Amino acid sequence: MPRLTVGEYLLSRLQEAGIGHLFGVPGDYNLQFLDKVINSAEIGWVGCANELNAAYAADGYARCRGAAALLTTFGVGELSALNGVAGSYAEYLPVIHIVGAPSSAAALEGLLLHHTLGDGDYQHFLRMSREVTVAQSVLTPENAAEEIDRLLLTALKTRRPVYLYLATDVAMAEVAAPKEKLIVERSSDPAQIAAFTAAAEQLLAHAGSVVLLADFLADRAGQKQALEQFLADVPMPFATLLMGKGVLPEQRNGFVGTYAGAASAGDTQHIIEQSEVIITVGVLYTDTITAGFTQNIDPGKTIAIGLNSSRAGDKTFTHLPMAEAIKALRSVAIRYGASWPAPVVAPPPLQEKPSDTLTQNSFWQAMQDFLRPGDIILADQGTAAFGAAALRLPQDATFISQPLWGSIGYTLPAAYGAQIACPDRRVVLLSGDGSAQLTIQELGSMLRDGLKPVIFILNNAGYTVERAIHGEHQRYNDIAAWNWTQLPQAMSTECSAQSWRIHETAQLTEVMKVIQRTQRLSLVEVILPPLDVPPLLKAVTAALNQRNSA
Amino acid sequence: MPRLTVGEYLLSRLQEAGIGHLFGVPGDYNLQFLDKVINSAEIGWVGCANELNAAYAADGYARCRGAAALLTTFGVGELSALNGVAGSYAEYLPVIHIVGAPSSAAALEGLLLHHTLGDGDYQHFLRMSREVTVAQSVLTPENAAEEIDRLLLTALKTRRPVYLYLATDVAMAEVAAPKEKLIVERSSDPAQIAAFTAAAEQLLAHAGSVVLLADFLADRAGQKQALEQFLADVPMPFATLLMGKGVLPEQRNGFVGTYAGAASAGDTQHIIEQSEVIITVGVLYTDTITAGFTQNIDPGKTIAIGLNSSRAGDKTFTHLPMAEAIKALRSVAIRYGASWPAPVVAPPPLQEKPSDTLTQNSFWQAMQDFLRPGDIILADQGTAAFGAAALRLPQDATFISQPLWGSIGYTLPAAYGAQIACPDRRVVLLSGDGSAQLTIQELGSMLRDGLKPVIFILNNAGYTVERAIHGEHQRYNDIAAWNWTQLPQAMSTECSAQSWRIHETAQLTEVMKVIQRTQRLSLVEVILPPLDVPPLLKAVTAALNQRNSA
Repeated sequence: MPRLTVGEYLLSRLQEAGIGHLFGVPGDYNLQFLDKVINSAEIGWVGCANELNAAYAADGYARCRGAAALLTTFGVGELSALNGVAGSYAEYLPVIHIVGAPSSAAALEGLLLHHTLGDGDYQHFLRMSREVTVAQSVLTPENAAEEIDRLLLTALKTRRPVYLYLATDVAMAEVAAPKEKLIVERSSDPAQIAAFTAAAEQLLAHAGSVVLLADFLADRAGQKQALEQFLADVPMPFATLLMGKGVLPEQRNGFVGTYAGAASAGDTQHIIEQSEVIITVGVLYTDTITAGFTQNIDPGKTIAIGLNSSRAGDKTFTHLPMAEAIKALRSVAIRYGASWPAPVVAPPPLQEKPSDTLTQNSFWQAMQDFLRPGDIILADQGTAAFGAAALRLPQDATFISQPLWGSIGYTLPAAYGAQIACPDRRVVLLSGDGSAQLTIQELGSMLRDGLKPVIFILNNAGYTVERAIHGEHQRYNDIAAWNWTQLPQAMSTECSAQSWRIHETAQLTEVMKVIQRTQRLSLVEVILPPLDVPPLLKAVTAALNQRNSA
Repeated sequence: MPRLTVGEYLLSRLQEAGIGHLFGVPGDYNLQFLDKVINSAEIGWVGCANELNAAYAADGYARCRGAAALLTTFGVGELSALNGVAGSYAEYLPVIHIVGAPSSAAALEGLLLHHTLGDGDYQHFLRMSREVTVAQSVLTPENAAEEIDRLLLTALKTRRPVYLYLATDVAMAEVAAPKEKLIVERSSDPAQIAAFTAAAEQLLAHAGSVVLLADFLADRAGQKQALEQFLADVPMPFATLLMGKGVLPEQRNGFVGTYAGAASAGDTQHIIEQSEVIITVGVLYTDTITAGFTQNIDPGKTIAIGLNSSRAGDKTFTHLPMAEAIKALRSVAIRYGASWPAPVVAPPPLQEKPSDTLTQNSFWQAMQDFLRPGDIILADQGTAAFGAAALRLPQDATFISQPLWGSIGYTLPAAYGAQIACPDRRVVLLSGDGSAQLTIQELGSMLRDGLKPVIFILNNAGYTVERAIHGEHQRYNDIAAWNWTQLPQAMSTECSAQSWRIHETAQLTEVMKVIQRTQRLSLVEVILPPLDVPPLLKAVTAALNQRNSA
């Protein structure tokens, strides 16, 4: 039987999981494994400027490619990455976190090595990672093949991160090559499918109106295409929550906007909640995107499809993978859909007319025109995400935000990961100035790698999302004032980027035209009023502030 | 009895602990507490660009002021800070980590709030922090006063970080003002002191030669002055380990250099190890600074003073605070010291003559001349720290490095914290290019606050410390090439910094003269050969690589 090192075995399995790149930062406990990565034809090494950024980049990559891998070094490296891994856990992204660790002999002796806490306990960080990963393993030469397979399958199946502890000596140990391919099996129960179908039929058979509300878990389960087909077969009004924006085809007739409970714009809330039957797919009601749980969805008239279980009215069905449930529901809906009214709805228009001076309103109107089919749009969890909620996404666009975990600074490295995952698609990053400062060093990595995303820095001189919540004029919401347009030059000795600082709407539309024509990394600093916020954010933060002050 | 809010109570206790500033990043769960901070006349708010940097800055501040405080927000913020807090734990710095958390009501209900993992469990992050803090508490209005006192005293006593979970509503709840001052009591046992004194006397009474080896724990216990007095009363040869560099007065006669086991330069190892009696104070033998545990210190002839227990030969004495042990030992040493030979030793000179082209050797020679009494010198855990090991520190200098935890990028934000702690002292930061990229955004904070540290970026085009360990020519040790001298301008709209890129030794010395004359933030990019390393690093990495490949 052919033999290879544990490191090589792991790389071959990562490739089978659809992973083509490994993000991370080298450290002296992972260099032996990195040698194998550099030699690999299948897995490309993507060195990041720090570990948190690497974790964010891996998360962004996983959102575009289905899964991702992250390499850090013991202690210092892995702890820096934890916030990013936790975000992947909260928002269901299978990120394989590989931690290069000291040799097994050193751990056994409990030596006072660097990157330990100095107490001889080598398991501190594994225990910390338990809270934010779905499975963990300390690899040994004996268990490596089995454990690598188990953890990768668990990650892919649950769509959550796992933690692999890889000692320097274990990475170089030899194991037998895998005999079979890695296959993710999802158990489903025909009886449950039949029962679910019958229960759904009971609701749908007599429905005068039906709507579809989808969210991010539909995307994580790879059901974007299936839902598009569903809407093509059975046209009906549909909306997403902000977290799942992009999972439904917003250019199609029937799109009613982004649903945000009582904070929804225009008729969106009314159309969704007043429908006789509501089909929800992969929906989670998080405080920030429901204006503090103001959704009013009657469970009795709801068919709620989850990742592995579904509900029709008051009946719950388990062992039911989302894909199977959607398939079953589609066959029922096709049968009765002809009697439902055709969707003659439209998403709420962006509010006012654009003004000459730049405001949130005029910025988002210009952005609506700027977007192109196939774009990958990332919006950071501040004014950017709440403003982007009102956009009508072009065909085949991907939208990436992080409303549940909500770690500011996430999108800049995530944009790097997304661009590595999809080199042929245009990446459009929308970030506040406060957010971008947290993770700015990854701009240097993008330039080093010759990537060409379009980056809009919404400069409102601080943390405007927090000003909206609390402390409107408090100086803790102010930040250091940067010359954003100089950063690409400063972070690359071979910079071919273009950058602008924009004060007026007319300037912005002119610059957007230039960007449409050119193929260079573009950074646009957009000067916005510090207290100007998108309408959705205004509605949501009023609710949040009430809770924190309660 | 006067009443105040829990937030105000906490601030008053922080002040009593000698803390004058709070480092952190605002987040919507800590804004209520931040209002109190902004109103406080005693505790200044220091907003950082991200949480890891804030934790590093707090650590640097604690090294200069004895203790520090750090404020983050639940989940996203606190996890980003964990690596920094872990460093404070490993290297004994009392950092009070305050985490602003969702309201108690939300936690009780397990609501699906942002910054949670979405599973209703609000204790995940507290459990993670348990591994890297010495005490934790979820504050309530009922326990707040008692728990704040307990945690602060525990931190100050053990010199390690603690974790305070402060819900938004608890921060605003009212409690009684403290009646008594916060006092750290250290229990000591007179019988143990007497027994230790007798055992030490047995060793010292007949010693023909005695040396002193001190390390970082002596600094943490505040024994720098006591040790200087000890050496003034009883002159003897002395050395420190790299981690404790600066705790002994290196300009005094008797200084024999930095002890690093078999990797020590010149006669240092011989003088220390061959002495008839070796007094060690607060020493930890970590792999990186002993070239892989090559120290050869005979326990039978060693008097080893620890934080809370000491050893003389084979006898151990507990309940013995370091200060008491040093005092006892001093009285014995004064009695017999007259018969010990006067120290006629000198530290090993910096190796070769400086060359015209810049090398590690010529750089460190120039640095030796650049340093001034009272400087705070920070050296990142790469070529910088290993090169700085050979410096002879000027009078009253403070040296900050992180050899045990060894998180690269640490020193740039730590320099920010040190400069906030000591606004009147000059801060000299020595960082590699790879290191500085991890945490560069804090340069913007320094400029915003008008601070004027002197920053040397040792640009060797990547991770040279790792090249020395493994993968000399592997591309994973390369990084994005930046225009370092443009960064101050890019990270401040009101930049008054000066910066240079230096290729030759003569340039360097000229620039150093300019810096000595001016009072501005100075950034000097020093171009060094990618494979050139200080002699100590060469010796140490050979040992490390052997272990990782074993």
